[in-house]
Amino acid sequence: MDERTAILQDLRERVAASAFHAGIGLTVQDADRGEVRLAFEATPAHLNLQGLVHGGMLATIADTAMGLAIRSALEPGRRHVTVELGIHYLRPARPGRLAATGRVVRLGSQVAFAEAQVFDHAERLLARASGTFSVTAAREP
Amino acid sequence: MDERTAILQDLRERVAASAFHAGIGLTVQDADRGEVRLAFEATPAHLNLQGLVHGGMLATIADTAMGLAIRSALEPGRRHVTVELGIHYLRPARPGRLAATGRVVRLGSQVAFAEAQVFDHAERLLARASGTFSVTAAREP
Amino acid sequence: MDERTAILQDLRERVAASAFHAGIGLTVQDADRGEVRLAFEATPAHLNLQGLVHGGMLATIADTAMGLAIRSALEPGRRHVTVELGIHYLRPARPGRLAATGRVVRLGSQVAFAEAQVFDHAERLLARASGTFSVTAAREP
Amino acid sequence: MDERTAILQDLRERVAASAFHAGIGLTVQDADRGEVRLAFEATPAHLNLQGLVHGGMLATIADTAMGLAIRSALEPGRRHVTVELGIHYLRPARPGRLAATGRVVRLGSQVAFAEAQVFDHAERLLARASGTFSVTAAREP
Repeated sequence: MDERTAILQDLRERVAASAFHAGIGLTVQDADRGEVRLAFEATPAHLNLQGLVHGGMLATIADTAMGLAIRSALEPGRRHVTVELGIHYLRPARPGRLAATGRVVRLGSQVAFAEAQVFDHAERLLARASGTFSVTAAREP
Repeated sequence: MDERTAILQDLRERVAASAFHAGIGLTVQDADRGEVRLAFEATPAHLNLQGLVHGGMLATIADTAMGLAIRSALEPGRRHVTVELGIHYLRPARPGRLAATGRVVRLGSQVAFAEAQVFDHAERLLARASGTFSVTAAREP
Repeated sequence: MDERTAILQDLRERVAASAFHAGIGLTVQDADRGEVRLAFEATPAHLNLQGLVHGGMLATIADTAMGLAIRSALEPGRRHVTVELGIHYLRPARPGRLAATGRVVRLGSQVAFAEAQVFDHAERLLARASGTFSVTAAREP
Repeated sequence: MDERTAILQDLRERVAASAFHAGIGLTVQDADRGEVRLAFEATPAHLNLQGLVHGGMLATIADTAMGLAIRSALEPGRRHVTVELGIHYLRPARPGRLAATGRVVRLGSQVAFAEAQVFDHAERLLARASGTFSVTAAREP
C-alpha cells in the first residue's frame, strides 16, 4: 500500500470512528500528505431560518478539513488541537452537495497552520478559513 | 410586555423555528437588547475522537449567540448575515452543560460587530469569539 | 495607456501621496485589476527587541497590499475601509528586502474580501493575511 | 520595589530599548501582571489618504499591548512570539492622542492568548484585537 492510500485509509477510519463526523455525514473523498478533500451533503437539518446552511456547519467542515490535513502530515505519536479558527463567508450556501479542501500551510514543531476552502456543487467558493494548531506529543493512553 | 420580555420571546421563537438550532438542542436562557445567553448540552454525539466537544460545535454556538444578540438589537425589517467569524479555543471542552453569551460590540448602518464567550458548567471560559456581520434591508418575502 | 498600466500608475500615485506609505518606504512593484505586488525594505528601525521585523509592520504591509488590490478593482466613486484583518505569522522576518502580494477574493456591493502574503528576498512565505472591507459610495469632497 | 512598580519599569526599559517602539512614539502608561496600558500620539505621519490613522498602526499598537501584557506575566527565561493577530476596526481613528490596553486572556505552557482595545482621547473604542502567542524557553544568548 503506497503512502497516499495509507493516508486516505487512516483518515477514513478516523472519520468513521467519530460519532460527531459520522453523525453529520462527512466523508473523505481524497487525501495525500498535508492535503484532504471532504464531501458533505447539506440537508434541511443544517439550515438556518433564512434557508441557508448555518455558518457553524461551514466552520465545522472547514475545521475538520484543516485538522485532517494536519493529521495526515504529523508523525505517529504526535497530536494536534485547534487553538484558533477564522472563517470568511463569501457567498450564501444552499442545501445540496458541498465539498471542502484542507491544506497544511506550515507544520512547525509546536505550532501548525492550515487553510480550508468550502465549495458548492458547481465548485463556487463559499467560504475560506485559516487555523492555528498546537502540536504536542500524544498523551499516554 | 416589556422590551426585555418581548426580546426573549422573539429569540426563543426563532430558535424553536430553526430545525438546525432545535436539532442541536440550543436554548435561550436570557436576553436583552444586544445581549443573549444560551445553554447547550454537549452529548457524546458532539465529541471528537479525543472525547472533547468538537471545535465546530463551539463555533456554531458562538456564531448563534452573536447572531441572536445582533438580531435583538436590529430594527424590524433589517437582516444580518455573518461575513467573518474568529474563535480562540482556550481550554478543552468536556461533555456536559455549556453556556454561551453573545454581545453586540458595535451596530453600524451597514456593518455590525459582536463577541461571544463559551463557558462550562463551572463558568470556566472555554472559548472566545468575535464576528463581523453585514446588515441590510430585509429582502421582500 | 492600457488598463494595467493605468492601474499601476494610479496605485503608485496613491502611495506617493500618502505620508504614511512613503514614510515607511513601501513601493508598488506590479499591479493588475484585483492584484498588487509591493516591495519593502525592512531596516533596523522596523525591528523588535529580538532583532526581527515587528509583526505590526507585517500587518501594515499586508493591509496595504489588500487595500490597494481592492482599490484597483473598485469603480471610480466607490471607497473601501478595512473592517477586519487577520494575520498568521509563519516564519520570523529578518531585516532586508520583503515583498507582499495582495489579491481580491470577492468584491461584493457592500463587502469585499482580500488576502495577502508576505515573502522574504528568497520568496519564502513569512506571513499570510486575510481581510474584510466595507465598500460604500465615496463621500462628497 | 513592589511587583507592579518592577513590571512597569521593566516594560518601560524594553520599549525604550526598541528602535521600533521608540521611533513610533509608544509609551507605557501603566502596567500590572498580565495588563498594560499604552499611550500613542497619532501624527500626520500615521495617516492614510483619507486622513485617518492607518489600520496597520492600530494593529501595531494592539500587537504591542498584547505582547507586553504577556511579557509582564511570563517567568524570566521564557519568551513569546505572535503567531496570529486579528483586529476589528470599529470606528475611524483621527489624529491625536490614542490609548491601548492589553490583557492576558490565558497563559498556557506552550500557547498564550491576549486581547487589546484601542481608544481615542475621549475613551471611545476604536478597535478590538485578539492574538495567539507561542511561548518557549528563551534561546541562549
